[in-house]
Amino acid sequence: MQPHESARGPHVLRQINFGAVLRAVRDHSPARVADLMQATGLSRPAVTRAVAELRDAGLVADVDETAQVSMGRPAQWIRFRAEVGHVVGVDVGSHKVIAMVADLAGQVVASRQVTIAEVTTGARLLQSVRDVVAEALAKAGLSGDDVWAIVVGTPGIVEEARGEVLLAPGIPGLAHLPVLDELRTITSSPVLIENDINLAVLGERWCGAAVGRDSLVFVHWGVRIGAGIIIDGKPYRGAHGAAGEIGYADLFSALDAPDPSPMLGGGASSVSEQGPFEQMVGTQAIAELAEAADALAARNGDRPSRSDAVAAVFAAATEGDPAALAVVDRIASRFARGLAALLLVLDPGEVIIGGGLSRAGETLLDAIARHLRPRILTSPRLVLSDLGGDAVALGAVRRGLDHVEARLLAQPQP
Amino acid sequence: MQPHESARGPHVLRQINFGAVLRAVRDHSPARVADLMQATGLSRPAVTRAVAELRDAGLVADVDETAQVSMGRPAQWIRFRAEVGHVVGVDVGSHKVIAMVADLAGQVVASRQVTIAEVTTGARLLQSVRDVVAEALAKAGLSGDDVWAIVVGTPGIVEEARGEVLLAPGIPGLAHLPVLDELRTITSSPVLIENDINLAVLGERWCGAAVGRDSLVFVHWGVRIGAGIIIDGKPYRGAHGAAGEIGYADLFSALDAPDPSPMLGGGASSVSEQGPFEQMVGTQAIAELAEAADALAARNGDRPSRSDAVAAVFAAATEGDPAALAVVDRIASRFARGLAALLLVLDPGEVIIGGGLSRAGETLLDAIARHLRPRILTSPRLVLSDLGGDAVALGAVRRGLDHVEARLLAQPQP
Repeated sequence: MQPHESARGPHVLRQINFGAVLRAVRDHSPARVADLMQATGLSRPAVTRAVAELRDAGLVADVDETAQVSMGRPAQWIRFRAEVGHVVGVDVGSHKVIAMVADLAGQVVASRQVTIAEVTTGARLLQSVRDVVAEALAKAGLSGDDVWAIVVGTPGIVEEARGEVLLAPGIPGLAHLPVLDELRTITSSPVLIENDINLAVLGERWCGAAVGRDSLVFVHWGVRIGAGIIIDGKPYRGAHGAAGEIGYADLFSALDAPDPSPMLGGGASSVSEQGPFEQMVGTQAIAELAEAADALAARNGDRPSRSDAVAAVFAAATEGDPAALAVVDRIASRFARGLAALLLVLDPGEVIIGGGLSRAGETLLDAIARHLRPRILTSPRLVLSDLGGDAVALGAVRRGLDHVEARLLAQPQP
Repeated sequence: MQPHESARGPHVLRQINFGAVLRAVRDHSPARVADLMQATGLSRPAVTRAVAELRDAGLVADVDETAQVSMGRPAQWIRFRAEVGHVVGVDVGSHKVIAMVADLAGQVVASRQVTIAEVTTGARLLQSVRDVVAEALAKAGLSGDDVWAIVVGTPGIVEEARGEVLLAPGIPGLAHLPVLDELRTITSSPVLIENDINLAVLGERWCGAAVGRDSLVFVHWGVRIGAGIIIDGKPYRGAHGAAGEIGYADLFSALDAPDPSPMLGGGASSVSEQGPFEQMVGTQAIAELAEAADALAARNGDRPSRSDAVAAVFAAATEGDPAALAVVDRIASRFARGLAALLLVLDPGEVIIGGGLSRAGETLLDAIARHLRPRILTSPRLVLSDLGGDAVALGAVRRGLDHVEARLLAQPQP
């Protein structure tokens, strides 16, 4: 960026002031000019000018004075008009689709969730995504015109710039589906797509297990395993949008075993396969372990589903069942080996375990910490997800708000 | 950062102009005011004022006009006084100490290298470091007063802020040694310490295999294995200065094998041990593999040293020796497994293989690429180190120059 002292200097300064006052009024609404001066460090004329610009843009309004009588002061109060625009965060998972509608202050005003069949066609998936978003908006009493941004989270490798899902092993048929085009029939505002785990870490950092932390890894642990990374307070996606794909690491093969078959370029069947680490530690592997260990013998009369089997083994472990505890210990030990590789590379300040397995709670977390300790050189804080199944949708809302804010600040002010 | 439009605005702008003109005159020296206007986008008065400030600070000088006669123009030429200050980059390795002295333009004006015995005492190591720096300065005809910064690179985990080596497995006795205090007897300027591999990647990015690249991993492969990481053009150290320690990853143990013994907190003996990945892929393992495979049978009469053995097996492989080729293939396959874990986590744009093994050349690089391909999801550029054994010292010089520049720009101008 080349500095220009002539016309650009004051102009840039005015933009900066506009942004500072916007953030201040959003975070402290309602506020007086004096409050905004204090929050921003700006002079009264600068704040007054920025407030006038924000009022023209419809982003702030004067608070009705009669409503402020109890405060006993005639000073003018200004409030952020959070209701002037909305964003929609969408989580397209392998079993469910969630849409959350939030106002510009980040308040979720409506949400809608549907379960989808495991095997579905691309066309039906598209239809579900569109319906869920439309229904959430209807529930909030809004139309597509009220939406300033939609952000969609999906598994797989997403090329954000082109808005394309390059690889979505968890959802057959999703890769290269025109999800964004479908949503653009609802709104003419920007529609973005991002890897779901990259959004989950944004959600947890916004209002979950690691509020405001700047060095953070979120490890999703379910059928699939992957990590979302925050470095210096910003999402880290890697050079090709594929950072954090630890589920594909080969950690358990014998020394000098032959190479695995290629994960890419091997046709449709190979990309729907799990990675080596997922195969050994994902929920499928856990269910198989549980069955093999006969930890569920007592409950096995009517053959539980896989996720029930996993839940049952953790419940039994929490009650102290020795066979179940042995299964949990073995799972934690395997998971710790992969987590250690991730932590040795990244050395984050904080680690959040999310995904379905995080519901297993402290019994599992303690076992992971125990097996992790001899394998790493530092001691990051290790916590469970706070947001659970809402992490991706809330992260998508946060991403949408960030996008709206960046656009507001990039607009030349009058 | 809170913007202030009153006094701070023009002041900040002036600082920015000073920095812009400093960089322009350094990169284009000698230059005319018109050249500097073009390079910075600043107006003539702004450039003229910045040049005056730089002249007052001793950083630029007017070129003697008689020397410019051949250019046929009477315009005033200004040159960067690179000789006004120097930095020293120091590489403290397990077998050698290198010191390089460079001027402010990054030109290396003297260097000095000594080999040190494998087992030495802390006091003797300190003495060697001090001597090598003093001798390099003497060779350049400089004293400690001419030095604006010294940067030391060492193996291990370095807490940069406190200037302390917390863990240095490669050099017994180095951890907690007062290296910086020793060097502060030479100069009163800042003396910094940093992990050697973090410096190597800076060196390669400055003038080696990946000039100017912003998403970059340098993997050191010798007796020890570790990575230096560049993200968004800046070194990434992790939350505790321990990022990139892939040598400690456990990649070859059997499924459900017991945990390894702790790497930290186990007393002096444990921290001098190699990590699991290093044990399987470091030069020691390679020499053992070579011996076991009898690839060196013909040369084995007079029992070569370990590093000779490694060199011999790669030489034989390059000549097409089948047994040697099999050893190289096996080594590359093991290394690829660890490199894949690193790449799956970071997804960098570019990977440099450095350290002693990088001397093995294209035969090894091709084998690594072949074994890597089925294991990763993206295709980073894979190259060998350009700087070889000089990477750390040159990276230390670059770090020193960055430090000097940051200090110059942080100073309030008159």
